[in-house]
Amino acid sequence: LEPNAIEALVNGVLAFERRSIGKAITEIETGGETARAFLSAIHPRIGSARRLGITGPPGAGKSTLVAFLVKAYRGGSQRVGVVAVDPTSPYSGGALLGDRVRMSALTTDPGVFIRSMASRGAFGGLARATWDAVDVLDAAGCDPVVIETVGVGQTEVEIAGLADTTIVVLSPEVGDNVQAMKAGLMEIADIFVVNKADRNGAEALARDITAILGLRDVGAGGDAWRPPVLLAVAQRGEGVDAVIDAAGRHADHLRNRGLLEKRRRSAIRRRILDILEHEIRLRFWTEEAKRALDGEVERVYRKEADPTGAARRLLDGASP
Amino acid sequence: LEPNAIEALVNGVLAFERRSIGKAITEIETGGETARAFLSAIHPRIGSARRLGITGPPGAGKSTLVAFLVKAYRGGSQRVGVVAVDPTSPYSGGALLGDRVRMSALTTDPGVFIRSMASRGAFGGLARATWDAVDVLDAAGCDPVVIETVGVGQTEVEIAGLADTTIVVLSPEVGDNVQAMKAGLMEIADIFVVNKADRNGAEALARDITAILGLRDVGAGGDAWRPPVLLAVAQRGEGVDAVIDAAGRHADHLRNRGLLEKRRRSAIRRRILDILEHEIRLRFWTEEAKRALDGEVERVYRKEADPTGAARRLLDGASP
Repeated sequence: LEPNAIEALVNGVLAFERRSIGKAITEIETGGETARAFLSAIHPRIGSARRLGITGPPGAGKSTLVAFLVKAYRGGSQRVGVVAVDPTSPYSGGALLGDRVRMSALTTDPGVFIRSMASRGAFGGLARATWDAVDVLDAAGCDPVVIETVGVGQTEVEIAGLADTTIVVLSPEVGDNVQAMKAGLMEIADIFVVNKADRNGAEALARDITAILGLRDVGAGGDAWRPPVLLAVAQRGEGVDAVIDAAGRHADHLRNRGLLEKRRRSAIRRRILDILEHEIRLRFWTEEAKRALDGEVERVYRKEADPTGAARRLLDGASP
Repeated sequence: LEPNAIEALVNGVLAFERRSIGKAITEIETGGETARAFLSAIHPRIGSARRLGITGPPGAGKSTLVAFLVKAYRGGSQRVGVVAVDPTSPYSGGALLGDRVRMSALTTDPGVFIRSMASRGAFGGLARATWDAVDVLDAAGCDPVVIETVGVGQTEVEIAGLADTTIVVLSPEVGDNVQAMKAGLMEIADIFVVNKADRNGAEALARDITAILGLRDVGAGGDAWRPPVLLAVAQRGEGVDAVIDAAGRHADHLRNRGLLEKRRRSAIRRRILDILEHEIRLRFWTEEAKRALDGEVERVYRKEADPTGAARRLLDGASP
């Protein structure tokens, strides 16, 4: 895009024009120089939105909870944004009919902007594109911006973990909650929601989580945040108020102790490192370097070199 | 180590001296210049061993199967090696008493060398250290070298996938076989073993795997390898001969079609790339670069820059 088209895009986003926001995020996914110029232009307008991460295993009811949270937040906010990185999310096309109906109320609300991110193929990685998209909605005046990711796979879990407040949604009947704990969800959760609390095993699951948290808390200071474990039946909107209340308390906790600043700095650091690794790869893998790699593979195969020696030669060849 | 100490280490390994092999692998895990010199010295002696990867979910019975396979291979081989990257492996300390007893027969066999790799903290990554350890056992005259990894986590699955022949072990009662399929085990398997075949659900599991393989095979050439799905009760040694037979047929298949060469080249490529990424990181993150990163985090936090701009500045600063 030409400079004045980029300026128009920036102005459109700041004015919460839906077409401009959609177009900006598409540019971001593609990852060209337009996206660069655009992001560079909006960055002074970023930082007022609360960033709310929501993750958990597929089928735990994340999207349903998001629908109710967004509805509730809309009562007190002019604009709310949602970025969904979840192939099972109704926005992304993997939902039951009931979910779709529930979501359609959201998508027709002119104060709500929802965007699904493609799980594959985003230039420079999903995390980069997702967090840049969150910046766009932040600049567009959304507050909060909700980031929904499926809690399977390190990247997806990390994306939700970069939020100011991260909510982990589990449910008693979703197969393997142990698996969820292994996936690193325990570590990133500021708030636990045991959804489908009307089903068997919900109380037991909540107790298990509480017990694990108790073990972890040994040695933590008296001032540390203790993630609440909340019961909810998101399908009927039950327990949603308690989640909003807990998110508010967590935000206060961060703010009162100067921790929000710390958390945002560490998210920024993570984002810079992601981009850096990608750019290093791009710059390193010139056509010449690719050919040199082919040659080194051959040398190792013929026992003329070992893999580490080959790697070092490639590296030395690359930085004259 | 001094050059003559390294030479002594090399000679010890080539003579299958257990202490030398153990010491060499420890050096490799530590990752210093001794390891470099050692690996560079042994590489002409590498490449004769068959490399057999074994992976699957925890509790599927991998270690028990490995014990019987090693015993069987020992009948026809002077030396057999095992590298276990599996926190639930009896060599690594996570086993039931029964497993320990079964394994102890192996560990007292002077023709068998077993080594557990630490799952964390190997310098330059677990994959690098594991494959270098396999090279050591190859140079020491082991054939085959068995690589056992737990099929949870991308790294572990990839490590087993770099073998000449990869065996995926599943069992009907090990919770989530769907999870196993998601983890990429379907893609790397040359042979499936449905272990604990005397339990409920074994036949059904075998049928499911066969069905999935059938779907995948649509469009594959008539000459393509079709992974056999074998039933076994490893605990009683049942089905082990069929596994060895299938591994032999797979090796023949690769050799007769020139595919072994291709597969080893692609494993070598993967290994070089792993080391390269690690070395690039090491070289990039000088003290100066770390300080510069702190500065850029601060700039982004203060809205004086966006993350991509910050990353590019770091990159340009690093390559003068």
